[in-house]
Amino acid sequence: MALTEFGLIENYFTGLGPAHPSVALGIGDDCALLTPVPGQQLALSVDTLVADVHFPASADPYRIGQRALRVNLSDLAAMGAQPLALTLAITLPSANADWLADFSRGLREACEEFSIGLIGGNTTSGPCHMINIQILGLVPNGQALLRSGARPGDSILVSGTLGDARAALDCLGVAKPDADQQHYLHRYYQPTPRIALGLALRGFASAAIDISDGLSADLGHILEQSGVGAVIDPASLPLSPALRTRADAYDCALHGGDDYELCFTLPPEHLTRVQELALALAVPITVLGTITRERGLLARQADGSHIPLAQAGYRHF
Amino acid sequence: MALTEFGLIENYFTGLGPAHPSVALGIGDDCALLTPVPGQQLALSVDTLVADVHFPASADPYRIGQRALRVNLSDLAAMGAQPLALTLAITLPSANADWLADFSRGLREACEEFSIGLIGGNTTSGPCHMINIQILGLVPNGQALLRSGARPGDSILVSGTLGDARAALDCLGVAKPDADQQHYLHRYYQPTPRIALGLALRGFASAAIDISDGLSADLGHILEQSGVGAVIDPASLPLSPALRTRADAYDCALHGGDDYELCFTLPPEHLTRVQELALALAVPITVLGTITRERGLLARQADGSHIPLAQAGYRHF
Repeated sequence: MALTEFGLIENYFTGLGPAHPSVALGIGDDCALLTPVPGQQLALSVDTLVADVHFPASADPYRIGQRALRVNLSDLAAMGAQPLALTLAITLPSANADWLADFSRGLREACEEFSIGLIGGNTTSGPCHMINIQILGLVPNGQALLRSGARPGDSILVSGTLGDARAALDCLGVAKPDADQQHYLHRYYQPTPRIALGLALRGFASAAIDISDGLSADLGHILEQSGVGAVIDPASLPLSPALRTRADAYDCALHGGDDYELCFTLPPEHLTRVQELALALAVPITVLGTITRERGLLARQADGSHIPLAQAGYRHF
Repeated sequence: MALTEFGLIENYFTGLGPAHPSVALGIGDDCALLTPVPGQQLALSVDTLVADVHFPASADPYRIGQRALRVNLSDLAAMGAQPLALTLAITLPSANADWLADFSRGLREACEEFSIGLIGGNTTSGPCHMINIQILGLVPNGQALLRSGARPGDSILVSGTLGDARAALDCLGVAKPDADQQHYLHRYYQPTPRIALGLALRGFASAAIDISDGLSADLGHILEQSGVGAVIDPASLPLSPALRTRADAYDCALHGGDDYELCFTLPPEHLTRVQELALALAVPITVLGTITRERGLLARQADGSHIPLAQAGYRHF
């Protein structure tokens, strides 16, 4: 089925998701127009998903649509920003109506879940499916959660459980996944961007990041940009029941990416209040360790000694 | 030469172009942050260039960098918006340091020419070079130039000359282009986004669009979105001396894309004032015809009769 660019946009992407009141002009002109909200900064981020790099080319297009938006929303969550709008640039090897219908349904449902609308886009042909989303959010002036604010003595926390998305990489091609594998795959394709938690952390968290590359790498970014170090206790890592059945569960949780949970730091005086807020939001959060003045990322061992975390990952706690 | 994503960003894209005062946070966190400018709306647009679809894969990466930004800036020009910032999502088949150095130099020079800085980005591997730019601009509340405002009796104008970029498609692979071909190729790779003209048209033009798909198609968008028709005089089309040597010069100018000139409409009372402004900016503008109440896009023939423009393109005026 051959579709022109304009046919594509009209059929599948017009009116996708609810329009925020500050969207003055959406799809259909040379640019979209946003009217600023007084006292709010605009947070923006861009992410690209490439077939057979970031998802299997044969994956269910509904899941690709869901995942594409959710991983982008996670960047807003990590800044404590409220979702505002998105633009989509999509590259298609061919204009397959079935693929597009399922992809746009996945994207639309995710847009509706997080109250965010498509305001602009671009469709091109190319050698494979590529989905590029630019996400826009709002955050009160000066209240964004940065990576650079962690201070010695702050607690280090993560939301949810870690490692499931890494475990999914081992079963992406499985025809009939078992219950554990279905759990991993759901976590991989439909991660939960922690928008509500990010909003709740404003004014409390000293630093935040979302875990896309793995806890060790992403916590490493906080440490580097804050000029500090950390000691964490791998035994405290939050693991799903499914992941606990794997021999490499701690490796997955320490170094696996794609979980899109938040890793954040809290001055000790805010710990109890944030635990109450997280409980009210029904978002599990777990204390993993403490920020230190000395640089480096260390793991606390059972005997109380510390070793570099890069090594700890391979020692199967 | 193998480079990590972070190495790439640091080496080639950090500090690219001047930062606008409203950029509160640039590259390096989960999101960039923009502080709104009171009384100004944000204009945004996204465009993707794919190797061997939008440029030859073997093209000089400097020219790809130049072109990628310039075609995006043209969307801001068409809205009458002032450039503010850009994000870049780039897909690379391999991290080739020479390619990246030349590409980023082209992009950097274009950024400096138009006083716009890179505030965020994303690099991924993929099957071919793809460059995705999201461009952001500022326009005073309610003053953006839309496609939907053309009214019967308005004059239809274009900037610059048309058709050169279409002629370039015939010589993209020529090893030693002659002078005319060099002109076409320069116009193709280094189009001139008409930012200054777009700003000057605010308050005067009733509609505007940039010519990316060809005059007939893009003027067609104005007509459709304004609910009007037009009669234009193909003999008045502005052609470069190089293009005049081609037998299909008028076809190129009427239907060829990639020129990134502005097509705009003006109520008759503003024509003289806008001609003065364009003269002061040294941007040639040409009256092509008139907006009509009757739908359809017609060409005026030498005998004064009108025929549909789609046919006119093939009759070699």
